[in-house]
Amino acid sequence: MYEPPAMAPQAVNPLLDIFDAKSVAVVGASADPGKAGYQVLKTLLTMGYEGQVFAVNPREREILGVACCASILDIQTRLDLLVISLPAIHAVGAMKQAAQRGDIQGAIVLSAGFSETAVPEWVEAERELVRVAKSAGIRVFGPNCLGIINCNSRLSTSFAPGLTFAQGRIGYISQSGATGGAILMMAADQPKPLGYSKFAHIGNMCDVSNLELIEAYGSDPSIDVIVLYMEGVRDGRKLLEIASRVTRTKPIVLFKVGRTDLGAAATLSHTGTLAGSDAVYDGAFKQSGIVRVSSLEELVDSAKLISMFPKAAGNRVCVLTEAGGLGITCVDQISRDGILQLASLGRVTQERLTSILPAMAVVAKPNGYVDMTAAALTREHCESLRAILEDPGVDSVVLMTLPPTFLPALEVAKGLAAVVKEFKKPVLVCLMKGEPMAEARRYLEENGVPTFDTPDRAATALAALTRASLVKSAAISTVTSSVSDPVIQKALAARRNLLEPEAMQLLQDNGFSISAFHFARTKEDAIRAAAVIGGPVVMKVVSAQVIHKSDVGGVKVNVVGAQAIGKAYDEIVANVGKAAPEASIDGVLVVPCAAAGTELIIGMVRDPQFGPVIMFGLGGIFVEVFKDISFRVAPFDREVALDMINETRAARILEGVRGQAAADVGAVAQLLVKVSELAARYEEISEIDLNPVRVYAQGAAILDCRIILKQAASASAAAAGQSQ
Amino acid sequence: MYEPPAMAPQAVNPLLDIFDAKSVAVVGASADPGKAGYQVLKTLLTMGYEGQVFAVNPREREILGVACCASILDIQTRLDLLVISLPAIHAVGAMKQAAQRGDIQGAIVLSAGFSETAVPEWVEAERELVRVAKSAGIRVFGPNCLGIINCNSRLSTSFAPGLTFAQGRIGYISQSGATGGAILMMAADQPKPLGYSKFAHIGNMCDVSNLELIEAYGSDPSIDVIVLYMEGVRDGRKLLEIASRVTRTKPIVLFKVGRTDLGAAATLSHTGTLAGSDAVYDGAFKQSGIVRVSSLEELVDSAKLISMFPKAAGNRVCVLTEAGGLGITCVDQISRDGILQLASLGRVTQERLTSILPAMAVVAKPNGYVDMTAAALTREHCESLRAILEDPGVDSVVLMTLPPTFLPALEVAKGLAAVVKEFKKPVLVCLMKGEPMAEARRYLEENGVPTFDTPDRAATALAALTRASLVKSAAISTVTSSVSDPVIQKALAARRNLLEPEAMQLLQDNGFSISAFHFARTKEDAIRAAAVIGGPVVMKVVSAQVIHKSDVGGVKVNVVGAQAIGKAYDEIVANVGKAAPEASIDGVLVVPCAAAGTELIIGMVRDPQFGPVIMFGLGGIFVEVFKDISFRVAPFDREVALDMINETRAARILEGVRGQAAADVGAVAQLLVKVSELAARYEEISEIDLNPVRVYAQGAAILDCRIILKQAASASAAAAGQSQ
Repeated sequence: MYEPPAMAPQAVNPLLDIFDAKSVAVVGASADPGKAGYQVLKTLLTMGYEGQVFAVNPREREILGVACCASILDIQTRLDLLVISLPAIHAVGAMKQAAQRGDIQGAIVLSAGFSETAVPEWVEAERELVRVAKSAGIRVFGPNCLGIINCNSRLSTSFAPGLTFAQGRIGYISQSGATGGAILMMAADQPKPLGYSKFAHIGNMCDVSNLELIEAYGSDPSIDVIVLYMEGVRDGRKLLEIASRVTRTKPIVLFKVGRTDLGAAATLSHTGTLAGSDAVYDGAFKQSGIVRVSSLEELVDSAKLISMFPKAAGNRVCVLTEAGGLGITCVDQISRDGILQLASLGRVTQERLTSILPAMAVVAKPNGYVDMTAAALTREHCESLRAILEDPGVDSVVLMTLPPTFLPALEVAKGLAAVVKEFKKPVLVCLMKGEPMAEARRYLEENGVPTFDTPDRAATALAALTRASLVKSAAISTVTSSVSDPVIQKALAARRNLLEPEAMQLLQDNGFSISAFHFARTKEDAIRAAAVIGGPVVMKVVSAQVIHKSDVGGVKVNVVGAQAIGKAYDEIVANVGKAAPEASIDGVLVVPCAAAGTELIIGMVRDPQFGPVIMFGLGGIFVEVFKDISFRVAPFDREVALDMINETRAARILEGVRGQAAADVGAVAQLLVKVSELAARYEEISEIDLNPVRVYAQGAAILDCRIILKQAASASAAAAGQSQ
Repeated sequence: MYEPPAMAPQAVNPLLDIFDAKSVAVVGASADPGKAGYQVLKTLLTMGYEGQVFAVNPREREILGVACCASILDIQTRLDLLVISLPAIHAVGAMKQAAQRGDIQGAIVLSAGFSETAVPEWVEAERELVRVAKSAGIRVFGPNCLGIINCNSRLSTSFAPGLTFAQGRIGYISQSGATGGAILMMAADQPKPLGYSKFAHIGNMCDVSNLELIEAYGSDPSIDVIVLYMEGVRDGRKLLEIASRVTRTKPIVLFKVGRTDLGAAATLSHTGTLAGSDAVYDGAFKQSGIVRVSSLEELVDSAKLISMFPKAAGNRVCVLTEAGGLGITCVDQISRDGILQLASLGRVTQERLTSILPAMAVVAKPNGYVDMTAAALTREHCESLRAILEDPGVDSVVLMTLPPTFLPALEVAKGLAAVVKEFKKPVLVCLMKGEPMAEARRYLEENGVPTFDTPDRAATALAALTRASLVKSAAISTVTSSVSDPVIQKALAARRNLLEPEAMQLLQDNGFSISAFHFARTKEDAIRAAAVIGGPVVMKVVSAQVIHKSDVGGVKVNVVGAQAIGKAYDEIVANVGKAAPEASIDGVLVVPCAAAGTELIIGMVRDPQFGPVIMFGLGGIFVEVFKDISFRVAPFDREVALDMINETRAARILEGVRGQAAADVGAVAQLLVKVSELAARYEEISEIDLNPVRVYAQGAAILDCRIILKQAASASAAAAGQSQ
């Protein structure tokens, strides 16, 4: 089903070897069923793990029929994996013994009580754990975790007793043990338990990180889809880099919490992850081809669908229903989602459906929607599904049928499954909940047809599959080695940000198209500059201490003629002197008046997780009230820039509403790309604010430009406070 | 729990008597299990119905052990209810016999093939059915329906075999049989099957309507919450009138499909309901206190919660979790919903929680969020829940706990249920899915504590309960007997719409505050008028044929001085004469220039279902691109007007963003109320368009006003086409 990998096949990832461990020792094995050290051992012994299992406990002779060793040093055969289930205070000691052995590849530290306590001595103990392990080449998972599960070898280090194995092609990574457990239970509680290949919850991530696991799963031939629960990442750029690569061959579906400010606050108190701006994460996920879903149910529904149908050829879906109400619910969800569209059934298909279905049936009203009505029996279900799947204009089908009245549900299921097998198109069946449907749903899922509880959940899962199939991931270029610029050096030396004329010069030097500008240091200079520019000009005070120039009377627009320019110069100097007496005035920037146009904002900030990120939005209240903005991680190419424009509702305005000409979206995209490159090139720049940018039918103009430098950031914040 | 009804107790609704029928005859009883006439009879005989059951079939001796009558006229004892399960062609005959008897109160016509076919002869047959029934005082349910279920008497006319009875306090009304069946199955498929009192699916609604059922359920003491699946209504005003009354004492929760344009198109082909604008429905639901939900699962979740806890005292919710990931998911959903907010736990509560919970616990970070951590045992769960419920700042609690690790789930459930019983506050428990939790969830629900599959679904259900508890329904005044106005009469006689000066006059006569305006029929007149007004004026062409005045050069702004006014007058006449030669020019409207301000749109249209509806939004692209508009049914009071303003994101702009002064929201509300009253007063007005209205720190001004009359509507549309 998959396209061939875009890169040369890699050597098998060493982390995968750890999942394939042939022998495991549980250090801290316990005879008390209330302890993790008992539950882990029990799982390893009773759930079919094929490798060798050792129990380490100096105070017990045997547990669950296994003789106990006093120490791992007593184990005479080769040992691949260690599970440490000891109080934190004893964990380092166990790791030291492991290091002595020399054969151990991985250690899962289940124990809590390390860095998550934020107590310095336990933070240090965790560091020591890693130091000891690294010295012996041991990779550490945890501490404070459930560890790993490999369904294929039936290896599980989890102490959660409710979990079951079901082999399949999903790779799970969860940043929360409880949520990870919940996901596995939801996945097990399907008509056919949803199979998976590997699961990992690695807690504090003192050594092995979620990102490494994504990479490992990416190279794992037993995994078709990677499913993540995430609260945040430390190194956003690395996530982007790895995910961009992995999603070229394997879908990644992700549920990330902390979407709202309060949710982010709760996240901080949970894993201590600096949640960062959720909007930046959102942009980064899109950029790297990760499919983000918005609930646990959607995560499991999508994982199920994608593990059964890894790819949809396109976004054209046909809704085939036996019941109007359910069908409409599905159409509503499809219309709302943004990626799916109703398929246009061809004339031949429509004629075939009309001849197959009862006279009351609704065929293609609207097109792509077919209501078979309650008079449709098994034959009608199967034949209309076949007719639709044969239509080359259909990429996928959502089929809803009734809680059974006179329809033999199992017979319908058998018929449908046979038709689905003839094609390679995703077909999602919604038989609703309830015991009467259970057998039919089980049959369908056992025969490769996913079923869903409600039509809207089916449509939502299909949207996720379609996104995963269609979205192209754009690898970010690695940041080129940082260069510098004399203008930046000068400002840094003076511990200030770039003055606006300097900022414009820097843009111009970096290939931005900038209209004429002149930095006038005297009144006469301003008059001369305006004469050269010609036509009405805008004059703006230049001062390192003034951020909000208009607020202090530092801006004059539409100034014409030498006398007016001289007067404006004097007024600006007087106004600013009065409103911001502490500001030293360097002069006045003289630029031509720009024509009217739609105003945009383009900004750059350095995100703690993702580094330089670029923001795009319509100016003013659109950003503040409508939050109609998009983010991407810099640097990026034109395609990403166009995506980030199109994602906002502002894009519709740029297309030209109310009879206005379409704006030059290409020019805006080019500007975004250039800003993203600038941000990557100069590490000293901490913020860029092009606000407003005016866009026209042809071209775009930067009207105001602010560049904040890293060292000067705090000084400028103080200045901003003063000038307001 | 409920507040006492605001009205005097009514006589029992006669429709409820039909649900309480003591004897039922199935006309068209069948021996074939594949027929509805068999399934209905079987349900009546085997599911515990306490009344008498008769089978009518002239060709059978007995079915399912019941002797068959050849005709209902052969039944010698009193007969309350008839179920007609005959081909459409025989239904009228059966109804005629029913009419002859004189004792039958209600007839459920299951048969399909009537007006839904849109075939004239069957549409007529349905009418005949009603005529016959009416003549004998028989109320008809259907045709083309599942009919009714009364769980208390175990009466069911449904032929869907999977349905079960579970007594409870929900009243269901579904506009789709399949969806209604699906809802019942989803309700049955809960840890404790969700009980209900009555269910109705009444198909074509040839006689009894959904609205009458809402009214009947409203007066039914066995029903606490009314749960609806809706595709559309014929008489929106009646819905509003009935629902406004019912929701004062009983919550109505509703799932309506056809939210999107394509969904609405599919709705049209399903029940033939003119879907109308979903945004108008949305406004009407809010106005009448109906709680709208957005999926079937949300409908069932909300129904469960509200039937267990009919009321929340407020919107302050505490999230209590044993697992961070689940807790954050819940907080995210609470923050997004708009009605709920995290409770502020008092200092004492926080101290108690800190002393109860393990040291690792996160107490009130953010406030209202408590993470007990995985170290919390049964005692910690129960005591912290009690501490939180005792806090007067908490109205409700969502509690999440883990898939069991070492926690005995049933013991926790018992402890929690005991604590919940001590208080009257809603507590929602989320134990996630999966077999290991099933017993604990069952115990909780059997002891009055609702459980939910995921944290976000719990939060969403709580939002619905909170809306139902807090929202006040605003009864619409019935439209006063329509008056007319000489200006309207004159325009109607001329088959045209109101000229702008006439429209302004009408507004002024109806108590709107309008700035000075003058309808100048000559140049000299315009000059005189401007002098009287003083200051710069706006001049606009007055012509019944010109709608888009600016497009034809018919508007001049900021005109000052006699000479300029004379010139502007001539130019307007010349421009319009050239651009719209067919237009007859009546003169020029002269008004003072209005100060700059935030521009709004206030509109009125007559909706096919709801009659006059008022639209509010910010001007221009906010309406077109951001769809940031709200609707209410006219007439309404100030409180509704404020609601409709606050519902838009524009409200945040009116509050004053970016340092601007707050706008006079009271003046906008007053204007909305006045427009709503005007629309109700003059039935001849089909559309009002005040666009723009400018709002200031004090007051608001109508800058442009268009009033379209009913008779002239088509003529004006033609004119609009020409002038563009």
